[in-house]
Amino acid sequence: MAPSLEPFFKQVDDSSENFIDRLRKAVAIPSISAQDENRPDVVRMAQFLTDELTALGAEVEQRPLGKQPGKEHLELPPVVVARYGNDPNKRTILVYGHYDVQPALKEDGWATEPFELTIDDKDRMYGRGSTDDKGPVLGWLNVIEAHKKAGVDFPVNLLCCFEGMEEYGSEGLDDFIQAESKKYFKDADAVCISDNYWLGTEKPCLTYGLRGCNYYSISISGPAQDLHSGVFGGSAHEPMTDLVNVLSKLVDAQGNILIPGIAELVAPVTEEEKSLYPDISYTMDNLHESLGAETGIHATKERTLMARWRFPSLSIHGVEGAYSAPGAKTVIPAKVIGKFSIRTVPNMESADVNKLVFDYIKAEFAKLNSKNTLDVWLQHDGKWWVASPKHGNFSAASKAVKQVFGVDPDMTREGGSIPVTLTFEQATGKNVLLLPMGSSTDAAHSVNEKLDRRNYIEGTKLLGAYLHYVAEEPTL
Amino acid sequence: MAPSLEPFFKQVDDSSENFIDRLRKAVAIPSISAQDENRPDVVRMAQFLTDELTALGAEVEQRPLGKQPGKEHLELPPVVVARYGNDPNKRTILVYGHYDVQPALKEDGWATEPFELTIDDKDRMYGRGSTDDKGPVLGWLNVIEAHKKAGVDFPVNLLCCFEGMEEYGSEGLDDFIQAESKKYFKDADAVCISDNYWLGTEKPCLTYGLRGCNYYSISISGPAQDLHSGVFGGSAHEPMTDLVNVLSKLVDAQGNILIPGIAELVAPVTEEEKSLYPDISYTMDNLHESLGAETGIHATKERTLMARWRFPSLSIHGVEGAYSAPGAKTVIPAKVIGKFSIRTVPNMESADVNKLVFDYIKAEFAKLNSKNTLDVWLQHDGKWWVASPKHGNFSAASKAVKQVFGVDPDMTREGGSIPVTLTFEQATGKNVLLLPMGSSTDAAHSVNEKLDRRNYIEGTKLLGAYLHYVAEEPTL
Repeated sequence: MAPSLEPFFKQVDDSSENFIDRLRKAVAIPSISAQDENRPDVVRMAQFLTDELTALGAEVEQRPLGKQPGKEHLELPPVVVARYGNDPNKRTILVYGHYDVQPALKEDGWATEPFELTIDDKDRMYGRGSTDDKGPVLGWLNVIEAHKKAGVDFPVNLLCCFEGMEEYGSEGLDDFIQAESKKYFKDADAVCISDNYWLGTEKPCLTYGLRGCNYYSISISGPAQDLHSGVFGGSAHEPMTDLVNVLSKLVDAQGNILIPGIAELVAPVTEEEKSLYPDISYTMDNLHESLGAETGIHATKERTLMARWRFPSLSIHGVEGAYSAPGAKTVIPAKVIGKFSIRTVPNMESADVNKLVFDYIKAEFAKLNSKNTLDVWLQHDGKWWVASPKHGNFSAASKAVKQVFGVDPDMTREGGSIPVTLTFEQATGKNVLLLPMGSSTDAAHSVNEKLDRRNYIEGTKLLGAYLHYVAEEPTL
Repeated sequence: MAPSLEPFFKQVDDSSENFIDRLRKAVAIPSISAQDENRPDVVRMAQFLTDELTALGAEVEQRPLGKQPGKEHLELPPVVVARYGNDPNKRTILVYGHYDVQPALKEDGWATEPFELTIDDKDRMYGRGSTDDKGPVLGWLNVIEAHKKAGVDFPVNLLCCFEGMEEYGSEGLDDFIQAESKKYFKDADAVCISDNYWLGTEKPCLTYGLRGCNYYSISISGPAQDLHSGVFGGSAHEPMTDLVNVLSKLVDAQGNILIPGIAELVAPVTEEEKSLYPDISYTMDNLHESLGAETGIHATKERTLMARWRFPSLSIHGVEGAYSAPGAKTVIPAKVIGKFSIRTVPNMESADVNKLVFDYIKAEFAKLNSKNTLDVWLQHDGKWWVASPKHGNFSAASKAVKQVFGVDPDMTREGGSIPVTLTFEQATGKNVLLLPMGSSTDAAHSVNEKLDRRNYIEGTKLLGAYLHYVAEEPTL
């Protein structure tokens, strides 16, 4: 163990009740970014962080982001940026987190008050935002506090970027990061984001890849208004019939994308990559548990994880404009919009994917000989991201995991997207590490969100140890 | 012209302002059966009819139907039954109509106040319920009044059955008709319903057939809860993928039902039947006008009308449980329910259709090799109805059309269902005639519902003339 870690770790243990109390205060602020009426709470949460960081000796600023697009009566919550330490002989590490949370109501099915941190007899700390992402954000504050109290020199200069709109599309953040990349963030030598989860419950992981997402709409329209199926059924082309037909040509029941050319865009699996999978702590039972059903497509964990992480997938999300209520309505909808998305992976470029998608859908629709009108467009896209798990930023985190948890971390990717990851990488030109604190059972975005006491306290040690090791890495 | 019709017709013309005033009073009562808060208005409308019929000398009763199923705090509006005349030497004709209306709000797009009868310079009388079905119901009252004022002997005994829940599923009516078929309605020699529309705007029609409707749900379920498509896309069977696949196997873009065996259940087109179509006053332009688009499937009016009236059709109405809002949500729905219905025609028996549908869907789903779970069931069915257009009841109406409008009526069917038709036929064992008053442009159920003055006044003559001719028919 690096000599300075021991007193730091001891101090974290000694301060753990303090740290839990800090989390309790944060959870008590319902900083729900999606609900207009909670905007003052989001701002209050920004002030809480500002006060805590200031008390710890950081230089803190609240940066305004202007009016909320589409809701101009609302001011976006500020980005809280902070600098702790300004030693030109130390590396500078930029950390990101978010202080806003998902909505939560007791009546949604919470066993406890969502905005009161409640600890059960298994040391599970329930509360909205506990794991997503107040626990990890406060982890960085705890690291500063423990160093100060233990009298351990802080190993790096720390830059913080804590936003308050992550759960509502990170409005305004991309532009802010771009603008500050050569200003407030210019010294950053590496970036660390703690806002995702372990693959399971026991073994920490480092995350080096994310899939992208291209989200499409297909609209098919015919008559000028909805029709009665008794009167017009059989005599007019029905948009819903055509849509169902086109959607059925996109993906088969085994998850294979049927759009020609997509598979050819996917980077081949290398032997080195393949070798990472067998050791990953994951089982088919883990999949079945998280599905709540045995409806997995693949037989092995390796194939399942690859399907999730490094192959594209296509999901059909729903239909707008058709009859979606319970009951029986004999309508022929005049215009229906099918929604689907493709999770993208290296080396799928969005423009190439779009062309294949548009050409194929138009060709399949043409085969129907329908007099209805089809349109297909991209709603939004977000690029995939893959970092090298061999980079010094990851090596440092790996050593920290080994130090705190006694195991080598799983090197994982995620099937979903965390768009800010790519933004930081592109804006700063530095390596970005995803270093999760919470576990797979934390129920972020769901009822009964929690963070285990172990994940919070040992996670605080992990964040601190990472800063020590990343300070010492030969190259970054 | 039968000698007694001339003074009756003259009286209708002379009383036309009175009759329009009667319609104005009726339209002013917002008897919306679907909205709880309007239930007192529905009851007020029943009382209005009761008072008017009583003043005309009819024996009137309001028959209670009990509590509304599922809304036990609400009393169903009464059926208003009336008898006018009790001469054993005359035939007895049972007429049906409904005094409730669809909801209507000015802000839905009405050019005028929906519950104020407003007559424009083309004598179009706008107002909710004007054509559906207050105009036709009042037509029968007008017929009585004109006979009394003109001193013309009423040609038949008239039995009225006016309900107040037609726009909300005719709750309670079927049982009532069954129960009264051998009591209040026992003398009926024939039944006449005026609650549908001309095929166009110029030429009256008599309607001798209706399609039935079998409404189905297909549910496909997999995971225990909705999944994130980033996390699970590619590794789990998706219910929406399976559903779209199964739905795409039901009907092709040209409206052909793909379920084996359905076509074999359909009665062949006879030469006699075929001969009815060419003379029907309908054009492809009429179809395009009502569609608001040129998206008709068939090239000729004959094929179009047959597709609507005498062949089955299959429409996909929508999906419950999938993402149906605007925007982009990356959800894998855990359980989706597809809704579709088949319009049925002679000789499709519901049980036979169900078996073909269930077997086929299960077989198609099995081909997918999905681990998800499929269920398919019938939500409800209603049988098709076809009467002989050669029956005396129709001959009488045909002569009345010729007398009033100077043309032979089109003999039409309808693609939709009017379930009470079959109920009356089965309960009374008598012929049922559909004798519409309004035209195809009346916009029943839509904004700016109207009844043309001509259709109301000449329609009143038509109903009266029909009673005279049906009184004289050699056989019924």
